Formats: sequence, structure tokens, C-alpha cells
Amino acid sequence: MSANILAHSRADERRSQADETDVILTGDRPTGSLHLGHYAGSLRSRLALQGRCAQTLLIADLQALTDSSGRAAQVARHVPEVALDYLAVGIDPARTTIAVQSRLSALAELTVLYLNLVTVARLERNPTVKAEVELRGFERDIPAGFLCYPVSQAADITGFRATVVPVGDDQLPMIEQTNEIVRQVNRLAKASVLPECRALLSSTPRLPGVDGRKASKSLGNAIPLSATPDEIHRLVRAMYTDPGHVRASDPGRVEGNVVFAYLDAFDPDPTAVNELKERYRGGGLGDVALKRRLEGVLEALVAPIRARRAELARDRAYVMDVLRAGNERANATAESVLRDVRGAFALDA
Amino acid sequence: MSANILAHSRADERRSQADETDVILTGDRPTGSLHLGHYAGSLRSRLALQGRCAQTLLIADLQALTDSSGRAAQVARHVPEVALDYLAVGIDPARTTIAVQSRLSALAELTVLYLNLVTVARLERNPTVKAEVELRGFERDIPAGFLCYPVSQAADITGFRATVVPVGDDQLPMIEQTNEIVRQVNRLAKASVLPECRALLSSTPRLPGVDGRKASKSLGNAIPLSATPDEIHRLVRAMYTDPGHVRASDPGRVEGNVVFAYLDAFDPDPTAVNELKERYRGGGLGDVALKRRLEGVLEALVAPIRARRAELARDRAYVMDVLRAGNERANATAESVLRDVRGAFALDA
Repeated sequence: MSANILAHSRADERRSQADETDVILTGDRPTGSLHLGHYAGSLRSRLALQGRCAQTLLIADLQALTDSSGRAAQVARHVPEVALDYLAVGIDPARTTIAVQSRLSALAELTVLYLNLVTVARLERNPTVKAEVELRGFERDIPAGFLCYPVSQAADITGFRATVVPVGDDQLPMIEQTNEIVRQVNRLAKASVLPECRALLSSTPRLPGVDGRKASKSLGNAIPLSATPDEIHRLVRAMYTDPGHVRASDPGRVEGNVVFAYLDAFDPDPTAVNELKERYRGGGLGDVALKRRLEGVLEALVAPIRARRAELARDRAYVMDVLRAGNERANATAESVLRDVRGAFALDA
Repeated sequence: MSANILAHSRADERRSQADETDVILTGDRPTGSLHLGHYAGSLRSRLALQGRCAQTLLIADLQALTDSSGRAAQVARHVPEVALDYLAVGIDPARTTIAVQSRLSALAELTVLYLNLVTVARLERNPTVKAEVELRGFERDIPAGFLCYPVSQAADITGFRATVVPVGDDQLPMIEQTNEIVRQVNRLAKASVLPECRALLSSTPRLPGVDGRKASKSLGNAIPLSATPDEIHRLVRAMYTDPGHVRASDPGRVEGNVVFAYLDAFDPDPTAVNELKERYRGGGLGDVALKRRLEGVLEALVAPIRARRAELARDRAYVMDVLRAGNERANATAESVLRDVRGAFALDA
């Protein structure tokens, strides 16, 4: 507990942005197409960082297998889909490396070496692992790969010599675990062969699903990144607002109102949104008018993404080339890290 | 418990020799030079199998790190020493592949994939892991790599499509764990991409150290494979016999008598050894005469090994070439297995 509190307070000091010398590692598990929650929560800041810092997006297919090896086919299918989503929103493969975890054998080798530096008890105490074990109902049947996934994540982070890792609060224990491993490797090497990393906490609150619950592909409550105008219309119309706000003239609640959450996230005119909030609170603004505005905002955001995605989807060979080139670049870095870590373990003979 | 009993009885049925179609994987942790206990227990049978079956000797340097990452330098130093020992006793690199575990990245990749197929509870129940955790006094501080080493061993075995693994009784749970993984991979692949393996149990009892305790380099009670005549003389003279056998004319005990254990293992004339046992039991055979015979037997065994080892040790480049060629051959096999296993996990995109 106290370690966790410490992690939080340390991370708070570092809520700063990344600077030019930073190396950023981030990515996604390819378990479904990305949606507007991903756009607000991570893709937008990746676009902002692109070109300013060295940045790698890792499509974490092996990590997606750690809690369900049964859905391997689904994971494999989504690898190019996630790459398409990245390219469609404007990730430029000349400035951001896009790589596939399972294609980087050095990451597996780093994982196997790091497993010797971490005790089972330490992994079992990891608050993120504990929470996720509960969430997934594993109880005693935790796959070993799942228990060890903080070690695999440390391999990913150090494999790119990353100094900054964008995470949610719940992932801070992963950063601590990585830095413990970094310090042990440096101690073994008697040199600073790996940099420590710090968390980059997002200031954006998590975007809810249209029904107000956590957005999730399986619940069908997320708006896909390349939603059609019809889908946008249907999903915005279904959005949870304030059940007490029956007539336009009734005063309405802004907090917990999904339409305002989306306007806060995407409306390019925050002053206008604040005025709308005032009018909504006081009574005199109907849900229909409010939703019409949001629909326009979302369509303006999504239309170019949708068009670019459709264009790219017709050229699978290009997407595959992007992944191939990204894997090659990522591999060169990860192999150089592996050489250093092997050296720390006296394995360079 | 019942699973363990089952493992034993199944293995008993299979106490047969390997045949021509078998693929054998065996090897050693490079934590010290090999000694006569290794010769009696494993090297001799590897020489007998050489040329009859496909055989790989894996120098398991990564496995040596799982219970003590602190001794990395010692492990690294012993990799070429173990290779020298193999070559000195007559392992022919043209007929037996000698490879170094940490040089085969496919084995790390297989380990990471297999970790998703095994639960933590299953690893904690593994009798070999339980016994070794106790032996090493790890208690709650088990390195994750140590808990996971049956999975790494499954990667080694399957990485060569091995069908036969020479093991001691205490290692039978490792074979069971490997076959569980094999069956799961084949189920995922909907095809028999990996063969199950069986244990080859040695009929030779474990050779004790000269003091009657378990032979161990750290106790200094083992006779090195390339001992000098002086070392042989000193170690044989120090051998534990029967403390009640004070004068040559006293009756002596053969059981637990280390000199007889070594004569049983190495004297080329078992009939003569049986006659000596009779005389010793009845009284009339002194320890000095007995030890002189053993000294002659051991010197005859060790002299050519010592000479060949000294010759090879002057040509380190040759030893390195042997390892390089062995790693290359081993890599080709392990990479082809990895392709099949990746396919089972739908990771071939």
C-alpha cells in the first residue's frame, strides 16, 4: 500500500509533458478496432508528440494472449486493423515507429532474462495484476503468462530505451516494476545500460460509452473511429443524458451527462460548450438540439479519418509494408538493448 | 500426489532404450566442470546413443541463471568448459549437436508463448519445483524464472521436437508438464505439430562423492573428468570405505563403500569386482590394495580424456567453431518449431 501511495505522489511530480530528448513507448492490445475513447485518451496525444519525440507504438499481440490464449485468431486479425486505425488518424510511419510485439524476438529474450530478477511474491503483490486477476475472475487459475506480464511490459519499455510511458493511474505499479528491473540490470552491468522511465499521466478523463458505462467493443457502446454518419446518428441519439430532464424547459444535469462528456472531449469551441452547460443547467435547452450539435462535431472529426481508413484498407500491401519497416527499425533497437542486457548477465561469450 | 504416482508408473513402462527414429535432448547446466559422476550417469550413455539417434546436448546457461542470477559470470565461463568436456570424452560434433541455450532466441519465444498455457497453480504444484524450492531455501522469494523453469524446459524439449529425454526419477514431473503443453499446442493448432516425449530413465545408480555424500564441485568431493594422476591418487586415498574395516583381515562392508561404487561404475571386469567383494566381505582384503586397483582403473579411463582435453584447450577457436556450428543447426530446428507454434497461436500474419 505505502509503496503504491509513493508511486502516486512521485508520478504527480512528473505530470509534466515529454520533452525532445524523451523516448516514448506506448501502444494497444489488438483485441478490437479503436474507438473515440482511444482517440480522446491516447491517439490525440500521440499525434501531438509525433515529430517532437522519438515515439514507438507497439501493437501488443502477445500481451493480448496472456489473459486469453483462446482468442488467438481474433488477436491476429486485429493487428492490421489497429495499424490501419493508427494510419487513419494521422500517425506518420516516417516519424512514429509502428511495430508488432510478437515480431520482436529480442523482447521475448529480455522477458526470459528479467524473470530471474523478480520474485513470484513481488508479482503477486503488484496492485495492477491483483486488480486484473479479480476483474477477470481467474482466482487460482492465473495463467503464468498473465502473472508475468509486468515483466514482459518491462521488456517492451526497456527494449526501446523508453524514458516516458503514457499510462493511466492504474498502471503506475507497472512503471515501478520496470524501474526496479532497470536498477537491477544496471547493478549487474555495473553501468547505466538502461534508462529509468517515468509515467506520463493523461489529464483527459476517460470517455464513457454512450450508455454511461465503460466504453467497450463487446458492449457495443463505443463509437468506432471510422463510424458511418448513420452509426454516429444512432449512437448519439442513444446517449445517456439526464433522466430527470424530460422537457427542454426543465433544468438538466451536466455531470454524468454523456453528451457533455463528448462535447468536452471533442468540441473545438469550449467557450460555446460552457454556455450550453449554463443554459442546460438553468432549463431551456433540449436534448435533441444538444445532440444535433454533438453529431455535427463528431461527423467533422470522423469524416476524414473514415475516408482515409477506407482508402488505406484498399491497399493492404502498404499497411503490411509499414509494419515490416516498423518491425525492422524496432528490432534494431531491441537487439542493441538485448546485447547490453546479455552483457549484464555475462552472456556475451 | 496421485498425478505423481501416475507419472511414475507410466514412466516405468517406458524404461526402454531409445530407437533409431528417436530424437534425444539432454544437456547440462554450466555451473562447473563435469566430473566422473556425469560420466557414469549421462556422458557414457550419450556416447552409446551417438550416431544411433539424432541427439542434441544443450548447454543450459539460461536455466543456470534461474536459481542464481548473481553467478552469471561463473555460468558464462563454464559454457566453453562444458563443451570441452563433451569433446574430450568423445562427443563428435558431426554426429551430436552441441548448442548453447541462450544463443537460441526461438527457445525464449516458445517459453513466452507457453507461459499462456500453464497456470501459476500448476507450476506451484510441480513436485520437482516444490522440492527444489525447499532445497534452495527460497521460501516466498522464488524468482519468477525459477517457478517458470518447467515451461522453459518444455520449450527446450519441444524446440528440438525431442521424443526422448534422459532424466532422473525426480525429473519425471517435467516430462508430464511438457506433454501437457504439447497437447495444448496440438489442440490449438488442430494438428499434431509437436510430438509428445518420454523419459529415458538411467539404470545407473548415482555415483557418490569420495566422502560418500552427493558429489558436488563446491564440496570438492568429485573427481574431475580430467583429473591429474596426483588428484586421482589423493581423491581415491580419501575415499570413504567401511570405518569398521580397520585391518585387512577384518570383514568389510561393500554397501555404502565408495570404492566399490566406483569399481562397479568403471571397472571393465565386473567378474573380478564381484570376487573382490566376496574377499572384502569375508575379511582378507585391505583398503590399500582395493584403492590401488581403483586408481589404476580410473587412470586408464581418465588419461585419454585428460590428454584430449589439454589438446583441445589449446585450440579455443575450434571449440568456438563447434558451438557456432551447433547453434546454427539447433537454431534451424528451433525456428521451424517456432513457426509451427506461432501458427497454433494464429501468429503467422
